Amino acid sequence: MRTQVGIIGAGPAGLMLSHLLHLQGIESVILETRTREEIEGTIRAGVLEQGTMDLMREIGVSQRMDREGQAHHGVEFRFNGKGHRINMYELTGGKHVMVYAQHEVIIDLVKARVDRGGELIFNVGDVSLHGVDTDKPTIQFRRDKDGELEELVCDFIAGCDGFHGPSRPMIPSSIRTEYDKVFPMGWLGILAEAPPSAPELIYCNHDNGFALVSTRSPEIQRMYLQVDAKDNIANWSDDRIWSELQTRLQTSDGWNLIEGPIFQKNIVAMRSFVCDPMQYGRLFLAGDAAHIVPPTGAKGLNLAISDVRVLAKGFEDFYKSNSRDVLNRYSEICLRRVWKAERFSNYMTSMLHRFETHSPFERRIQLAELDYVTSSRIGLTSIAENYVGLPIEW
Amino acid sequence: MRTQVGIIGAGPAGLMLSHLLHLQGIESVILETRTREEIEGTIRAGVLEQGTMDLMREIGVSQRMDREGQAHHGVEFRFNGKGHRINMYELTGGKHVMVYAQHEVIIDLVKARVDRGGELIFNVGDVSLHGVDTDKPTIQFRRDKDGELEELVCDFIAGCDGFHGPSRPMIPSSIRTEYDKVFPMGWLGILAEAPPSAPELIYCNHDNGFALVSTRSPEIQRMYLQVDAKDNIANWSDDRIWSELQTRLQTSDGWNLIEGPIFQKNIVAMRSFVCDPMQYGRLFLAGDAAHIVPPTGAKGLNLAISDVRVLAKGFEDFYKSNSRDVLNRYSEICLRRVWKAERFSNYMTSMLHRFETHSPFERRIQLAELDYVTSSRIGLTSIAENYVGLPIEW
Repeated sequence: MRTQVGIIGAGPAGLMLSHLLHLQGIESVILETRTREEIEGTIRAGVLEQGTMDLMREIGVSQRMDREGQAHHGVEFRFNGKGHRINMYELTGGKHVMVYAQHEVIIDLVKARVDRGGELIFNVGDVSLHGVDTDKPTIQFRRDKDGELEELVCDFIAGCDGFHGPSRPMIPSSIRTEYDKVFPMGWLGILAEAPPSAPELIYCNHDNGFALVSTRSPEIQRMYLQVDAKDNIANWSDDRIWSELQTRLQTSDGWNLIEGPIFQKNIVAMRSFVCDPMQYGRLFLAGDAAHIVPPTGAKGLNLAISDVRVLAKGFEDFYKSNSRDVLNRYSEICLRRVWKAERFSNYMTSMLHRFETHSPFERRIQLAELDYVTSSRIGLTSIAENYVGLPIEW
Repeated sequence: MRTQVGIIGAGPAGLMLSHLLHLQGIESVILETRTREEIEGTIRAGVLEQGTMDLMREIGVSQRMDREGQAHHGVEFRFNGKGHRINMYELTGGKHVMVYAQHEVIIDLVKARVDRGGELIFNVGDVSLHGVDTDKPTIQFRRDKDGELEELVCDFIAGCDGFHGPSRPMIPSSIRTEYDKVFPMGWLGILAEAPPSAPELIYCNHDNGFALVSTRSPEIQRMYLQVDAKDNIANWSDDRIWSELQTRLQTSDGWNLIEGPIFQKNIVAMRSFVCDPMQYGRLFLAGDAAHIVPPTGAKGLNLAISDVRVLAKGFEDFYKSNSRDVLNRYSEICLRRVWKAERFSNYMTSMLHRFETHSPFERRIQLAELDYVTSSRIGLTSIAENYVGLPIEW
């Protein structure tokens, strides 16, 4: 089997890359270890940056997003019992974000690929990469987990296979540096049947810890509570969750958090990770395969999409103009934006969470940071421009 | 002896307060433990915010500052061997800073007070405060250190007596909270006979640590090197200092640091400190008596001046309109701005210094912070608006 770009992983990065390449007449094949039902059914939160939205529209996969997604023009920062709205739309000259879950993006992209005859092979097993530093890199795999060992011969391989995938380890450890930080807290996330308590997301800093009020639909709300990274979900009854959310989110002006039946709860870890470089020979990493951010900045999905915008441009230049310039600088171009998103995610996490290690002075500095960014137009704009997404610097 | 406002300390806060009160027809007496020669001769660096400059002009003490001070419209951030200018003037709509040493400000203010018959008593000893929670607070002191014990009866006392003065402890510890942070590094500062190496200040982040190129006059330059807080000046020969400055400040485009004879060197500690509240009964703290910042943000002198602007307004309202509103809110008004300056000083210190405790991830986040603030107009403006000074929020 032969293709131009072999793509490992049908997450947002792999699917978007495949579609972008298709639009430029470049062939690709996607190999995915899970089934289509699994990837479409794994519920994940999602906040799309302006650039991600724009791209979805540009390539014709935005119909459902435009119909069902929720355009948010602002977010609220809440601290000392008082809310402060950040009007992103006005501060950035008309940019905003879209609350539209990651699995919905995946459903739309899978459909777009399938409708156009794209080759997606789900449920593969034993994926391995070979000869990534040669002109003919190959991917070996088995269909339906235990079929015959097949070989996909490629011009290039895109490793869009997530943090635990087989691509990243193919970059020799002698030239690969991995940066990481594990935060001491986790997020206890819930989905509840209730109407929205607020029209926009609320990022709340409280002495007890961070809380986030988000939404999924007019009927289903998503909320998060900072808990200890080692905490056990069994310690958190529904009553305790609501009580703690009510405490942290309380305002002096009587804002009301609407409760409802909780039908899903879990604890997610908070981690930062960056692999440098993101390329080796004819292998290019994109998305979680190369970097992880804590969810506080809502950047994970968007970074995956901006990676593959650069990568698609690199392949386009290679096939159409025989130019390797963008491909050669792929890692450099992506990492500059990745580090800025890591910075923002780290900053939001540091500003909004409770840290056991904070001295009283550091706690006051945290509140002064919140006071500065919410009382200065420049401070507000700094949050806004990062939240809606910084440009790619080519 | 009797006065309206008894002022302890003839630093920038006490002198400026006395002059502002004089202009409103309010009497004050300044008591200072050092001699006039000592306070005028203690060489201190100084960068005046726009608001400090404006006030100096407004009250007619700016002639020498306007003649000898150096107006700086920008600063440079240098990292990865490359300089990035922050054009404060353009970014803030015409605001800038003035490099004019603190002891020069003191000389100008002492002269202004003496010329107008202001009562300054230098070289006093055994200063103590009494009855600060009564309507007639008093200050006891001895002239020339060992004269008779005298008593200054006041309506109010302004504690402008620095970090180690007797005023702050008069706020009962039961209502006083002190926040502080001691940084693990110090600044080795030098004065050298040399022409300026650059037209504006250079704040430099290097793997070896922070360096700062500043200036005092066309003939004398001031520079700083980050060293360990426990380092000894004896370890730093002139050759070692120049060599380390050259290493840290080196650029890829061949910028040249001009050396010259070093005639003063010392190591200063880096500390943050805030006392809350800044008032008790009829005692009001201002300047270093209430708060300390590390020098990285150039905020110490400016905070002292903004404190006494608020305090002078409070006394003016009290004596002219019998309104205690500003006096009652003095601490609250000052502390909001103080905490924002503490935040900025802490931020600049964190962004620019080498921290032994930083992981490789945290080092990269630091560089990403520098990249963000120097590549985004909003990031640049955020530095600029804080550096030229945030407004007082009444």
